[in-house]
Amino acid sequence: MTAKKGFQPHWTETAPKQGTIRSIVKYGSRDAFKHPSHGWVHMMMDEFAMSEEDFSRKVEEGNTEVTLSQPVSLDAKHIERFREIVGKENVETDSYSRVKYAYGKTTEELMELRKGIIREVADAVVHPRDKEDIKSLVVYCNEHRIPMYVFAAGSSVNFGVRPAKGGVTLVVSTHMNKLLGINEADQTARVQPGMFGPAYEDALNRAPQLYGAKKKYTCGHFPQSFEYSTVGGWIVTLGSGQASTYYGDACDLVISQEYVTPAGTFKTREFPASATGPKVSDIMKGSEGTYGILVEATMKIYRFMPENRKYFSFMFPSWDAAVEASREVMQAEFGKPAIFRISDPEETDRGLKLYGIPSFVDRYLVKKGFMPMERCLCLGTAEGDASYTKLVKKKIRKVCSSYGALYLTGYAAKKWEKTRYTEPYMREDLQDYGIQIDTLEASVTWANLHQVHQGVRAFIKNRPGTMCMTHASHFYPQGTNLYFIFIMRTTDVDEFRLFQRGVIESIMENGASLSHHHGIGRMMGQYLDGYLGTEQMEVLRALKRHFDPNGIMNPGGQLGLDLPEDERVHPK
Amino acid sequence: MTAKKGFQPHWTETAPKQGTIRSIVKYGSRDAFKHPSHGWVHMMMDEFAMSEEDFSRKVEEGNTEVTLSQPVSLDAKHIERFREIVGKENVETDSYSRVKYAYGKTTEELMELRKGIIREVADAVVHPRDKEDIKSLVVYCNEHRIPMYVFAAGSSVNFGVRPAKGGVTLVVSTHMNKLLGINEADQTARVQPGMFGPAYEDALNRAPQLYGAKKKYTCGHFPQSFEYSTVGGWIVTLGSGQASTYYGDACDLVISQEYVTPAGTFKTREFPASATGPKVSDIMKGSEGTYGILVEATMKIYRFMPENRKYFSFMFPSWDAAVEASREVMQAEFGKPAIFRISDPEETDRGLKLYGIPSFVDRYLVKKGFMPMERCLCLGTAEGDASYTKLVKKKIRKVCSSYGALYLTGYAAKKWEKTRYTEPYMREDLQDYGIQIDTLEASVTWANLHQVHQGVRAFIKNRPGTMCMTHASHFYPQGTNLYFIFIMRTTDVDEFRLFQRGVIESIMENGASLSHHHGIGRMMGQYLDGYLGTEQMEVLRALKRHFDPNGIMNPGGQLGLDLPEDERVHPK
Repeated sequence: MTAKKGFQPHWTETAPKQGTIRSIVKYGSRDAFKHPSHGWVHMMMDEFAMSEEDFSRKVEEGNTEVTLSQPVSLDAKHIERFREIVGKENVETDSYSRVKYAYGKTTEELMELRKGIIREVADAVVHPRDKEDIKSLVVYCNEHRIPMYVFAAGSSVNFGVRPAKGGVTLVVSTHMNKLLGINEADQTARVQPGMFGPAYEDALNRAPQLYGAKKKYTCGHFPQSFEYSTVGGWIVTLGSGQASTYYGDACDLVISQEYVTPAGTFKTREFPASATGPKVSDIMKGSEGTYGILVEATMKIYRFMPENRKYFSFMFPSWDAAVEASREVMQAEFGKPAIFRISDPEETDRGLKLYGIPSFVDRYLVKKGFMPMERCLCLGTAEGDASYTKLVKKKIRKVCSSYGALYLTGYAAKKWEKTRYTEPYMREDLQDYGIQIDTLEASVTWANLHQVHQGVRAFIKNRPGTMCMTHASHFYPQGTNLYFIFIMRTTDVDEFRLFQRGVIESIMENGASLSHHHGIGRMMGQYLDGYLGTEQMEVLRALKRHFDPNGIMNPGGQLGLDLPEDERVHPK
Repeated sequence: MTAKKGFQPHWTETAPKQGTIRSIVKYGSRDAFKHPSHGWVHMMMDEFAMSEEDFSRKVEEGNTEVTLSQPVSLDAKHIERFREIVGKENVETDSYSRVKYAYGKTTEELMELRKGIIREVADAVVHPRDKEDIKSLVVYCNEHRIPMYVFAAGSSVNFGVRPAKGGVTLVVSTHMNKLLGINEADQTARVQPGMFGPAYEDALNRAPQLYGAKKKYTCGHFPQSFEYSTVGGWIVTLGSGQASTYYGDACDLVISQEYVTPAGTFKTREFPASATGPKVSDIMKGSEGTYGILVEATMKIYRFMPENRKYFSFMFPSWDAAVEASREVMQAEFGKPAIFRISDPEETDRGLKLYGIPSFVDRYLVKKGFMPMERCLCLGTAEGDASYTKLVKKKIRKVCSSYGALYLTGYAAKKWEKTRYTEPYMREDLQDYGIQIDTLEASVTWANLHQVHQGVRAFIKNRPGTMCMTHASHFYPQGTNLYFIFIMRTTDVDEFRLFQRGVIESIMENGASLSHHHGIGRMMGQYLDGYLGTEQMEVLRALKRHFDPNGIMNPGGQLGLDLPEDERVHPK
């Protein structure tokens, strides 16, 4: 069933019409596209036994207008009060806005939307102008028991922005999206929560022009969703970026935070460390909107020195060798790479095909003993001072070489870097032909990495016609993460949901963490009791009662905090 | 008033008699002594206008036996129950034990003890054998509302172990002091909370012999109190060690913790990172015994590679230059030193005298423009892989040189390293002659470092005849700490207390943190509301109510949690 040479499906190339479901489903910029390569099409046809015919009939494109049966159920006087607080122009109650700001980007949501299934939406969408607006809104909503949700960039992959109990959604990225100042002595930036990654990074890179700074800076945080993520989102969901092995996870970048909660407003102190009791700033990290609303953050920033960046890539003979070399790199104490990724055999081989490895290179690799479905690709970068990056790359080459790896120059790393934010764009194209690509990720220790990899992979591969590509991309001396990508052909959302929850349960049962960097949201809320244990979960609930006694902050399953006992799932 | 050449006071050289106050006052091992050098005696005579005569009459030596007026007020049936739980041999109710385990090592406590003033003590001292004992004790004490305190190594400098409400003190260092296992794949160690620093480090260093490990390890945590500190103490007080600039603070070394609380027992998951909601492990760090009792921890460990250690020291022309160079070292991203310290001019000059700088060296320094009361000493080490430590030292030399520093070889750093744990031993000798040496420390940002240094120093120096030596010893890209050592001649404990509290208030008023690495305890508890603000303090109190609804865990002012409103101090 392979495609004729040069065959390409007719990918959608036009911006979705305003007001359509597709305009909500589409990832990223309205008129930006990145289509699957010929290699991708080939792979789908092979794996799913699809014909050119199958790739000529689009399904469930979502080109219809958004219609909403749910009326605004919030009393008109409340809406009026919102208008008084934030200004008329900053309150929306139209169907389109209510739907748009109720959705993130989970595969399940997109599948449902394409079918015209619309879940819970807020009654009103409000765009606060500043933290004073948020204070007034929280006081008012708390008094009147109106549920509050926060929407920033909308790339949540776990229903984190779903207004499960209606009420009001605050869009913090409309106005509260600015860099408020740079403190060069302390290397910190004061930033509003709704600032998007690229705008933040750009402002830091151009600090000399924009702020008269002596140096250029970088934020150090580059998740795949970078272009559609915000600083506030990074913090409240405990995100990691592709360079976090060097710069630290989002939680490590936070110096201070200011929150508005029903129990009051506070700003934590701006010290790099202190011994003054349990740290409220740490408590708020990962609270995913259930305790209060982040209205400002002071973040660590780093010197921007792209001229010192070093690229490297390797081919390992096996997954074991790649894992062991990675562990040595992380534990040997010669400094840390910034980006570091190892792909398992299936991801490596599919990747080589997708990105068009010339056949003579493949023959060379095989001749050298790097066999298909055994060999593993590794790529990365080093950042920092010039002599530091030189040392780190040199030592990594030495370690990898000692585990039988072949050095492949920096080419693969540079190629990967170019497309690292645009992969999600392919999802619409594939969904147009009934193919779902989704990911789940988990933390592992070195000691249980293989069990998790094998166990979860086995679960996924047990479904006929399901691809599973896995990589590790965030490294610590004590372990790493595993990132599972699964691709399947189905438009049956119930079947998909059941399977996807099965993967989550397999992750838990094999001893990994529920999430390494995507957070819990509503999708995994039902599992959090089982994962943390009742005693720890009750600590989170005690904090919930303190901050939000009336249960108005992101209610309805977020973090599982307000789930009744019988909706909590305890896997084996 | 200088001493005759060779004059030395008659320092106490005999172990204190068992049962005496002095045996409780004395720091460290019963029969270990480290006396002030001739230089020290000289300095005291000069500064305090003391004669040889003054140094011949010891005061308040505390050689009398401990006597206690407070009877055991706990019902005999409770004591009997404790005996049933932990075994008869593990329960003490004698006066000496009750006093011994009620005291840490604040200057104020030692001054009072020497005068025979004895504050609150526990009714019973219990030595739990394991976590099951602690579980039974917590359940029982919670049921019967019996206050519980924890004593480990007893080097608290803020009344953290004072049994302010009587009840029972658990000594966790008697039995629960073992390394339970090393996980070499993950580079972690499972350890009991009462294990002392040296035993822990020794076991890790000798892991190949003791555990058949492939490599030697280090714990990476070396506070000045190392010899009389425990792993549990490091965690629950948020300690830092002298090499924490490289290895991270105690809070950064924790992978997982197990706690017994009145609200239940739990062990946090062992992942190096995860995005699964607010982290209960972080919440417990710094809880100082007020939420529950730490019964086991899994800690990061590092490869032990002392052969790669590099030493360095420098003289800077000024404090400004030393600070700016330190900032550059921390922000330049070429790796981090392990130990890094800069002394302010007064500490530098006194240090040079105390450690006997030859006069020709001093003349050379002056000739080169390094003037007394301007110049600043810097010393440190680099640890890790050999090429990494070489790079870090080379880059530090370059940075320091660019700020006008003179490289002084590694001599001063090596000399400092030899005596780094024994300085506290001098305290008894000085107190014997009515001289108090005490310290307070705080976090600062680079931006407010000078204000804190000048403001707090001015407060201290405003008291006639008071020495003040300051250094920074824990560095971050965003700031550092300031460690104030003040020396004064007084045996008036009320005067001392008032002055010492004044220093704390001056630290707060100048914008530094209440503590960088000594914790809050009871000494600073009264200030915590003012420091954190009511909203954050109420978060800590909400957690307190959850974990310990009956208020039995370390009650009586610890962290200020249970202080009534009118006992809270809000400095300007």
